[in-house]
Amino acid sequence: MDELTARVRAFAEERDWQRIHTPKNLAMALAGEVGELLAEFQWLTPEQAAAVMDDAEAGARVEAEIGDVMIYLTRLADVLGIDLSKAALTKLDEVATRYPVVEARGSAESAR
Amino acid sequence: MDELTARVRAFAEERDWQRIHTPKNLAMALAGEVGELLAEFQWLTPEQAAAVMDDAEAGARVEAEIGDVMIYLTRLADVLGIDLSKAALTKLDEVATRYPVVEARGSAESAR
Amino acid sequence: MDELTARVRAFAEERDWQRIHTPKNLAMALAGEVGELLAEFQWLTPEQAAAVMDDAEAGARVEAEIGDVMIYLTRLADVLGIDLSKAALTKLDEVATRYPVVEARGSAESAR
Amino acid sequence: MDELTARVRAFAEERDWQRIHTPKNLAMALAGEVGELLAEFQWLTPEQAAAVMDDAEAGARVEAEIGDVMIYLTRLADVLGIDLSKAALTKLDEVATRYPVVEARGSAESAR
Repeated sequence: MDELTARVRAFAEERDWQRIHTPKNLAMALAGEVGELLAEFQWLTPEQAAAVMDDAEAGARVEAEIGDVMIYLTRLADVLGIDLSKAALTKLDEVATRYPVVEARGSAESAR
Repeated sequence: MDELTARVRAFAEERDWQRIHTPKNLAMALAGEVGELLAEFQWLTPEQAAAVMDDAEAGARVEAEIGDVMIYLTRLADVLGIDLSKAALTKLDEVATRYPVVEARGSAESAR
Repeated sequence: MDELTARVRAFAEERDWQRIHTPKNLAMALAGEVGELLAEFQWLTPEQAAAVMDDAEAGARVEAEIGDVMIYLTRLADVLGIDLSKAALTKLDEVATRYPVVEARGSAESAR
Repeated sequence: MDELTARVRAFAEERDWQRIHTPKNLAMALAGEVGELLAEFQWLTPEQAAAVMDDAEAGARVEAEIGDVMIYLTRLADVLGIDLSKAALTKLDEVATRYPVVEARGSAESAR
């Protein structure tokens, strides 16, 4: 994670993109990349979507889109001074309290 | 990253959510969380957005939303068998080739 | 459509929201509302999603989210001086040329 | 609106796309198109975004993306049996009650 953050930061700074890499712009870019990721899945049946990585071409596209999403998420967190792993682990603990294991088992509703 | 992936996976399996954690559903959930993140920034000026972490309440909300996005991205990558860091680093190398440092400096257009 | 555009515009002007209703902010708000719409469908099976309007409570939520999306799309188009119906019809003609009926029948691929 | 709904429906039926035009898939496609719309604005300053329609090329791209968003929103509403204008007007009335004119004037916070 730290290496990725440093690499993405160096990438942006070498290109002098700090000025446009504002939190607002990066949040929009993140959403744009997630939109491209959705486009890979939108017309697939659940079965086709579950097997998408078995198709070399579609699998490579999905991996590239996931990479794009991760790049912008890493950059956004860095610009905001947020530790991405810590933010996720903290949130996971909170959600775990909201949805205790015993009540949540198998309930799609409780996944929300 | 490995620890986070393992924690998120255990969280889902303990709650028996594997059935609903399909790639298609997780991609939608990821997009939903990114939508909530956008909502934190949408009415802010660029200046307000840049200072959002100085406001304890708004900062905590942004950090929680970033955590949510990271949780679903981690889970989606795990379900697809994709190494999140590797996908990002591979994509970063590709983009670096497309936007060499010398041409890209300061050009907002080339950030796309 | 014209009535809706006028109603949404009056709504914003009465509240003095023109200043924050910039194209960039409205595009973000639109994406945020689409995220809430996705959240209504994300854990449903295709069958459950197809029957969502049969459930009074979920159906009302979906209708409200669709209303929100339409409000922001109408407002964004108005602020940009774009005729929403005309933009859709023009685009439909273009797509029709790209995907002629005879080749496209039944092909999910060609829906993209 | 009625004409647009009929045109979009005929377009889909002529291509035999009803099978893939499920609510879930259409919601994803809508989000994907909104992502492309965001991408048009993400690196622009507020001033550049406000003047985007003055640039013939960028303006045409924005109009095309808005058209795409409207097409999928129209199709999704049709498949769900929702009247798009009515859903927006109903929601507007609800929001008007939540944010009365006198309190909301000029408050960015109340736009949420």
